[in-house]
Amino acid sequence: MSDPTQTTLGALNGTDVHLRHVCKAREVTDQVGPRRFLHAGPPIAFTDIPGPMRGAIIAGLLLEREAASAAEAEAIVDRGEVSIGPCHDANAVGAMAGIITPNTPVVVAETTGGIQTFSPLNEGVDGAMRYGSYDEVTLARLRWLGDVLAPALDEALHRVDPLDLLALVAEGLRRGDDCHNRLVATGAALLVTLTPGLLRTSLDREDIAKVVAFMAGNGHFALPFAISAAKAVTLAAGGIPGSPIVTAMASNGREFGIRVSGLGDRWFTVPAPIGDPVLLEGATLDDVTPTMGDSMISETAGFGAFAMTAAPAIMSFVGGDMARAHEITRRMRAVCAGTSGRLLIPGEDFRGTPLGIDVHRVRATGIEPVINNGLAHREPGRGRAGAGITPIPVEPFAAASRALEEAGPERIGPDGPERIGAAGERGPRA
Amino acid sequence: MSDPTQTTLGALNGTDVHLRHVCKAREVTDQVGPRRFLHAGPPIAFTDIPGPMRGAIIAGLLLEREAASAAEAEAIVDRGEVSIGPCHDANAVGAMAGIITPNTPVVVAETTGGIQTFSPLNEGVDGAMRYGSYDEVTLARLRWLGDVLAPALDEALHRVDPLDLLALVAEGLRRGDDCHNRLVATGAALLVTLTPGLLRTSLDREDIAKVVAFMAGNGHFALPFAISAAKAVTLAAGGIPGSPIVTAMASNGREFGIRVSGLGDRWFTVPAPIGDPVLLEGATLDDVTPTMGDSMISETAGFGAFAMTAAPAIMSFVGGDMARAHEITRRMRAVCAGTSGRLLIPGEDFRGTPLGIDVHRVRATGIEPVINNGLAHREPGRGRAGAGITPIPVEPFAAASRALEEAGPERIGPDGPERIGAAGERGPRA
Repeated sequence: MSDPTQTTLGALNGTDVHLRHVCKAREVTDQVGPRRFLHAGPPIAFTDIPGPMRGAIIAGLLLEREAASAAEAEAIVDRGEVSIGPCHDANAVGAMAGIITPNTPVVVAETTGGIQTFSPLNEGVDGAMRYGSYDEVTLARLRWLGDVLAPALDEALHRVDPLDLLALVAEGLRRGDDCHNRLVATGAALLVTLTPGLLRTSLDREDIAKVVAFMAGNGHFALPFAISAAKAVTLAAGGIPGSPIVTAMASNGREFGIRVSGLGDRWFTVPAPIGDPVLLEGATLDDVTPTMGDSMISETAGFGAFAMTAAPAIMSFVGGDMARAHEITRRMRAVCAGTSGRLLIPGEDFRGTPLGIDVHRVRATGIEPVINNGLAHREPGRGRAGAGITPIPVEPFAAASRALEEAGPERIGPDGPERIGAAGERGPRA
Repeated sequence: MSDPTQTTLGALNGTDVHLRHVCKAREVTDQVGPRRFLHAGPPIAFTDIPGPMRGAIIAGLLLEREAASAAEAEAIVDRGEVSIGPCHDANAVGAMAGIITPNTPVVVAETTGGIQTFSPLNEGVDGAMRYGSYDEVTLARLRWLGDVLAPALDEALHRVDPLDLLALVAEGLRRGDDCHNRLVATGAALLVTLTPGLLRTSLDREDIAKVVAFMAGNGHFALPFAISAAKAVTLAAGGIPGSPIVTAMASNGREFGIRVSGLGDRWFTVPAPIGDPVLLEGATLDDVTPTMGDSMISETAGFGAFAMTAAPAIMSFVGGDMARAHEITRRMRAVCAGTSGRLLIPGEDFRGTPLGIDVHRVRATGIEPVINNGLAHREPGRGRAGAGITPIPVEPFAAASRALEEAGPERIGPDGPERIGAAGERGPRA
């Protein structure tokens, strides 16, 4: 008889994920349409969306040519003529606002078992849809990413050996990245791997030079590769009856929610925290949108802040020193049920990262799980206002722990635990 | 009145070095000729050269088309018809055997003050001249490196921003490399920087793909870039009367030698150590050529083993754990006069690496400086037999310390310390 926690850890540890495509979202999901977009975090009422999400929706309408001008797009938004749903319900993850429209260029990952996940290509920090920018420069870049860079990478990746995305993250940890907020070395490794393939595409060489320069100049380019892989392993680890392991953490900028393997697609939420961020010069706490985005699937899958000791160079950026890094990783070991067998921390003599947040342990210890967080300015398109290591309140973990207790012991069938299907309970609030 | 130690540290810390050329050695030095080659380490009698150096000279004769076959080349060697001199006397550094012939492809670095240094392109580990290979594959690769890759990189580097080589090493340390034995992340950073330039060269795109794949597949590709820069800063720090700071450490496989800033070009030597290496499977200590090469200019310039805490992932390769890494870096702080202002260790909260080995401190403390070492098989062309962190006996440092004392207080002119010119004492032995 298998233990649900160990079964879940086995999936988190043992699911192989490869890069499958770089394409437009409409090519991998039917859950988007001209005015039907995905967003970060748990479900949110359209009237409640924060500033950057509104801006990103305006950008999406312009990208989809549903509006010819920002004013026209704003009117569509004001009339509430856009329907939105969580990325997570489409097996997707989006950083920051996480708005995904049909023509959003995305990275597609796939498990050996055939689970596909996707995440928008990272646009850099010089105006980006994920922060709510919708100016001409942002739109032109999005179109170029979708029309030039994405097909080039898609062709390239099929001309090199299959790209194991967990191996990429593991290599990133060896190179001083946490693979959530610092990915510069991971991005270089990715670029080095794909460049020979890029050169063997039909792309014009000046376009290849632009693609390479864009990837090289964007320190977060590897993020969607890492988080689509994280989403894939956490999906593989989901739906195991009785399992107290967290399979998603995400925030829509208003509410932060978690999902738990043994509780299906149900969200347990808490008002989105701000924490104590390192603010960019000139910014105040009033300027900050509370935690927003799906990228904390990193921590859910055992990297990001959980691998803080692997990434000393990021500590000064998020505020802290090596002692704090060790303290963070140590504390996360106390709330995790296991240790990664493949995400290893060289600076801890190749000990695995803490893996698999156990809601019972969070409830029992009162230790708040932390995430490596980038915080958006509350006004659309103003970009990042700060960064920090943000503790997540214990409440949603404790609520999930109680819900598991109330559900009683897991049902174990002759073939092992039954899976809770997609029809599991769901809703914006626990 | 300036202190010679501080002046020397100022040069080690403050000398900027940029990548200048990738070309053939004959284009940057007149100290090589058809049967006149450079070698690693202090001067050595031709009859004393170790196996890998002999093999590398045979490779050199074939590369220079002085011999049509290996047998013919061996006969030339046996007749002693090749003259050799140290790389260091030509402002060069060569890993392992360090044989540099006119057509050896080299990386050329240059200080802002115009000092040029150079080092052979790294051929990888699959048969290499530096280990004494002289088979067809090695020769073909050397010709390709010189005829295709070198001119391509040379053209590329002039099409991107000037490449600051100390900044490259500093970035490498942030990415978990020590930049002597581990350079995989540094190499990726280098490749990412040069690729847009490569795409804008006249090179055929399939050749670019091969160049990129070669660089990407060779974890030590960045080594000559790092060590030519290290040679440049140590040259800038040389010739300061009274200065006890080491400006070179190098070994010819028989004798390990050091040079000291205040003692000009004089070598202080000791039989080359083997240390306690981690041997490759099947190898024994009898198979190992004692320490050989110029690449310990890394440690002389404040990286390599001295930055061990920056590179936890290399510790298992050279034998040890994080505690040992901390112990090594801590001990090296005790023998160094200063701390690097630009080579920072993220895992030590961005403390600078120990910089500037002070021969008086080595003598006083008895602490043996260490190097990150790769050890060659004693037979030509057998490649690497082991690797380890090798302690260098105190003797040559103590001898240099005594020599400085005997020389008396430094002469200080009205414009600061006089420089000891290239005419300084020199010889194979202290």
